[in-house]
Amino acid sequence: MCQLLGMNCNVPTDICFSFEGFSARGGKTDDHSDGWGIAFFEGKGCRMFLDAQPSVASPVAEFVRSYAIHSTHVIAHIRKATQGEVALHNCHPFRRELWGQYWVFAHNGNLPNFEPENMGFYQAVGDTDSEKAFCMMLETLRSHFPHGKPDVKELYFVLQEITAVIAKVGIFNYLLSDGIHFFAYCSTKLSYIVRQAPFAAAHLIDQDMTVDFREVTTERDRVAVIATTPLTDNEVWTQIQPGELLVFQDGLPMKYAFS
Amino acid sequence: MCQLLGMNCNVPTDICFSFEGFSARGGKTDDHSDGWGIAFFEGKGCRMFLDAQPSVASPVAEFVRSYAIHSTHVIAHIRKATQGEVALHNCHPFRRELWGQYWVFAHNGNLPNFEPENMGFYQAVGDTDSEKAFCMMLETLRSHFPHGKPDVKELYFVLQEITAVIAKVGIFNYLLSDGIHFFAYCSTKLSYIVRQAPFAAAHLIDQDMTVDFREVTTERDRVAVIATTPLTDNEVWTQIQPGELLVFQDGLPMKYAFS
Repeated sequence: MCQLLGMNCNVPTDICFSFEGFSARGGKTDDHSDGWGIAFFEGKGCRMFLDAQPSVASPVAEFVRSYAIHSTHVIAHIRKATQGEVALHNCHPFRRELWGQYWVFAHNGNLPNFEPENMGFYQAVGDTDSEKAFCMMLETLRSHFPHGKPDVKELYFVLQEITAVIAKVGIFNYLLSDGIHFFAYCSTKLSYIVRQAPFAAAHLIDQDMTVDFREVTTERDRVAVIATTPLTDNEVWTQIQPGELLVFQDGLPMKYAFS
Repeated sequence: MCQLLGMNCNVPTDICFSFEGFSARGGKTDDHSDGWGIAFFEGKGCRMFLDAQPSVASPVAEFVRSYAIHSTHVIAHIRKATQGEVALHNCHPFRRELWGQYWVFAHNGNLPNFEPENMGFYQAVGDTDSEKAFCMMLETLRSHFPHGKPDVKELYFVLQEITAVIAKVGIFNYLLSDGIHFFAYCSTKLSYIVRQAPFAAAHLIDQDMTVDFREVTTERDRVAVIATTPLTDNEVWTQIQPGELLVFQDGLPMKYAFS
């Protein structure tokens, strides 16, 4: 299986600290060493770095760890292959365009024998169950809303519906974003933390590294970090409930209920 | 306007030498300093680096210059904005999926008041005429061949047709690839060189830098480099004729005629 890392914030923030601990799990503190990837939204634009090498050994990952890219929506992934060979075309996150926006997706889990039918438009380039699931989700959103992106509540309900269908097939934790909204779905395991004033120091689990957020933030900053398992050992992370779909905006999690 | 750089070869080759000279034109030896980008195919996968900073100042470009990525199909671009602000979402190359393959496109030129209609599927994310033209080309290919990619000759003729329509609007030099075929269209200005045995030394125009290809190649290697203007001053580059569409395969240019 794999691990997920996401970040959503109210001001562009770099993910260097979290990515340092997360990428150590790609071959050093854990064995998710079949490739990795990270996507940063910058306005409507989206910058992606992918590599089939383990994140602890990849020169591209070394560059991402050392170069502070500021973004409000980030999705990262380290891979332990279940379906599909170790290759660039099977590295998450995956990206497609829908309604004139880039959509980015990464998955942790396994969907055995998953072969969606009636795929009119989006086709997987690689061999993973994950990319097929992403294509099916976009296909469903497009056919529900052919004239453009609906408001977030409408989007949420359709996403919840198609997620429930796919989650019946197997384990389906995912992160999904278009650079405006940030969706996080917990099928079995996904946690988050919201950092805001008063800030404190945080210490990584996977590296002996501490950042004192008081020194690098302003009072109005708010940052949500979402990860398969907590990245720090001196903060309280919230476990998302299995079956729960959250949508983060400006660093705050929300969910909707039919009323 | 902008400048294009492409590479197509029969064995995965790094583009460091050519990119060194090319990227110098993004703010040092020329003024194409409104962003840059490069895409490398690796099998079915595709790795892209983009930045809205000038290529001479961008840390991402510095990384690409120093890290030898081997690929058989590469498309790069340095931007001098004509339409659309200086921003990541307006940097070439652009990428979309068609028939389960990534397609990558970069454009040099200007298409005034270009607003294609009846765009069923592909929509531009950014504001450039270039991305709109790319979307229109993919839309046309998809509707001509709804069941999958045809053979290269059929593809060539439909591409030639839609290219002729768009080229009537303005200047439309472009590079287009799906990692299998590599198309280069000259509207006004585009040159190429094929390097193969016996290899020799080449010297850049934009940097005082020489590479002796005898030291870094084998006898069976063949590499085509395509660029808006020649990158070296001691080799003979071939100017593609205005209105001519070439398709490169294994480092060799071909074209088709109706028979």
